Amino acid sequence: MSETRVAADALRRFISLVLSANGLSEESAATVARLMTTADLIGQDGHGVFRLAQYVRRLKAGGINPAPKFTLLEDYPASAVVDGDNAMGHLVMNHAAELALEKARRCGVAWVGSRNSNHAGPASLYAMKALQEDMIGLYVAVGSANHMPPWGGTDMLLSTNPIAVAIPAAERPPIVLDMATTVAAYGKVKTAVQRGEMMPEGWMIDRQGNPLLDPNKSAEGFLLPIGGPKGYGLSLVFGILAGVLNGAAFGRNVVDFNADSKTRTNTGQFILMLNIAAFTDPAEFRSSIDEVWTEMKSSARLPGVDDIRLPGERLDATRRERTTHGIPVPATLLAVLDDLADENRVARIER
Amino acid sequence: MSETRVAADALRRFISLVLSANGLSEESAATVARLMTTADLIGQDGHGVFRLAQYVRRLKAGGINPAPKFTLLEDYPASAVVDGDNAMGHLVMNHAAELALEKARRCGVAWVGSRNSNHAGPASLYAMKALQEDMIGLYVAVGSANHMPPWGGTDMLLSTNPIAVAIPAAERPPIVLDMATTVAAYGKVKTAVQRGEMMPEGWMIDRQGNPLLDPNKSAEGFLLPIGGPKGYGLSLVFGILAGVLNGAAFGRNVVDFNADSKTRTNTGQFILMLNIAAFTDPAEFRSSIDEVWTEMKSSARLPGVDDIRLPGERLDATRRERTTHGIPVPATLLAVLDDLADENRVARIER
Repeated sequence: MSETRVAADALRRFISLVLSANGLSEESAATVARLMTTADLIGQDGHGVFRLAQYVRRLKAGGINPAPKFTLLEDYPASAVVDGDNAMGHLVMNHAAELALEKARRCGVAWVGSRNSNHAGPASLYAMKALQEDMIGLYVAVGSANHMPPWGGTDMLLSTNPIAVAIPAAERPPIVLDMATTVAAYGKVKTAVQRGEMMPEGWMIDRQGNPLLDPNKSAEGFLLPIGGPKGYGLSLVFGILAGVLNGAAFGRNVVDFNADSKTRTNTGQFILMLNIAAFTDPAEFRSSIDEVWTEMKSSARLPGVDDIRLPGERLDATRRERTTHGIPVPATLLAVLDDLADENRVARIER
Repeated sequence: MSETRVAADALRRFISLVLSANGLSEESAATVARLMTTADLIGQDGHGVFRLAQYVRRLKAGGINPAPKFTLLEDYPASAVVDGDNAMGHLVMNHAAELALEKARRCGVAWVGSRNSNHAGPASLYAMKALQEDMIGLYVAVGSANHMPPWGGTDMLLSTNPIAVAIPAAERPPIVLDMATTVAAYGKVKTAVQRGEMMPEGWMIDRQGNPLLDPNKSAEGFLLPIGGPKGYGLSLVFGILAGVLNGAAFGRNVVDFNADSKTRTNTGQFILMLNIAAFTDPAEFRSSIDEVWTEMKSSARLPGVDDIRLPGERLDATRRERTTHGIPVPATLLAVLDDLADENRVARIER
């Protein structure tokens, strides 16, 4: 598949223009554009500019509020609930994460939940905001479409409800875990369709409980949780913490934002920030994380394995490479973005 | 296997007497005995009175301090680090959980970590302390022996590092998730040995990466994480949060407390308490959790599945049954406990 390398700055400016053209203030457009571009820089290709057309569809259909006003529904010294007024999820969670950082500075830990939010891109974006200031971030979201039944069931009541945790190191890259509670995220199924590949056993089963291997038939089955009932339990509990507790959608109330551009999703998320200084000396802690890296890396390996990887290692390498050489945009996506430029009367991406 | 039903109160009194005979104060012995008995009542047979002989071995060998003095190493409005002075883990985490409840009442959320703690029984015990007062509890521990390498490796640097989350309902039982980050907890391997059964594929592999099915050969291999690299990531991150952040043991520093009764383990754990009133009306929240139960239960089912279960459902049923009919103690374990009684000059368990 042919692809073009686009400089991060050019991509960021383009996203910002398109969002401004759809009613976002200059500041809001810039914030979302920065976060979406970061998603592409760190290799989260399914959660960056790839989503722009979908976001614009929602903005035009009234499914996202371009000019929201956030409200603090609850406000305790170390916790809060933000009503996002149906804003773009990036704005809600960026705000929530900043509030959590501020509270954690004073209190040691803080937890801020959201309701009336929307899809906010990759989970790691918000957890990683902790890394700016000697904190550890943990983010959980109710996914924006249900792809999984409860264990043993066939009604799709649960989403992939992802978790991300970001932990700073000293010389080494930060440890960044960003994972769905399903064996494969739904994006991987879409990628298999694009590539004309079959899925490995263990990703999906059909309604009779048989392995589903053809990604074109994904509508006939559902994703499997990691560790069977354990992943089901994690998805359920994360959904309650990020959704029910915040008065956000969960279970049958989750709106499939791929199929519906108009209905308010009432997406829920939460961000937890841990102030390392409230536990130990941050410099010492960072050095300990370097030691964890070294210890894991130096483990003897299984036959055929040439390296032990730490969560966040590939993310960091991708960011370095793409910062230097630009973000690879496949020809099909570039065509979509050019159409988007024309429709919204903004300049096409420079290349 | 023949078994005797022992009333919870009789078991609790017995454990308390044995611990008192080994230097614990009356109050401390009573607290540990209550928590250990609760472990048996909720069906966590591998983490209740089954462990008593091992704890006594450690107490006699100087591996646990019977008369500890807890110190608050760090103390922020919503967080703290407790130095457990090498006490029994139950005492450290009971104290930490109470401190977290108190802080969460004022701050909305609280996170209390431990160092110089020890094995504290099942993770759910401490998460469930939240249920006394309209809170949600989340507990994570560094396991007390390493049974897993980093993904792709063969050096056992990681433990099963479990997580427990407890969420109150109204009429329904609370949702209680209590899970290891490995497909099977190590206790399940031991049970397979006792029963003379082979293990299913997916629990363990050997050092060549081949499935290991004979539980008698478990020393030749290691446990597999849930979801492959995902479970490895969870175990790593939980280990950092419960261990490294608290200045507790992690990686090569973890002492295998099954093999060594003398060396200070410096076990780390943390408990997070969320005050539901800081998010929404607790009564409404509890009703919403009842609705989650109903929604999951009413899902259509896969062929051959007769019920959808929620995490905590079996725990609740077991507790009810054992509260009424007593705790089943296998003959082999009862013999061990009788020996323990004689050695420590306390009365044998009433039956």
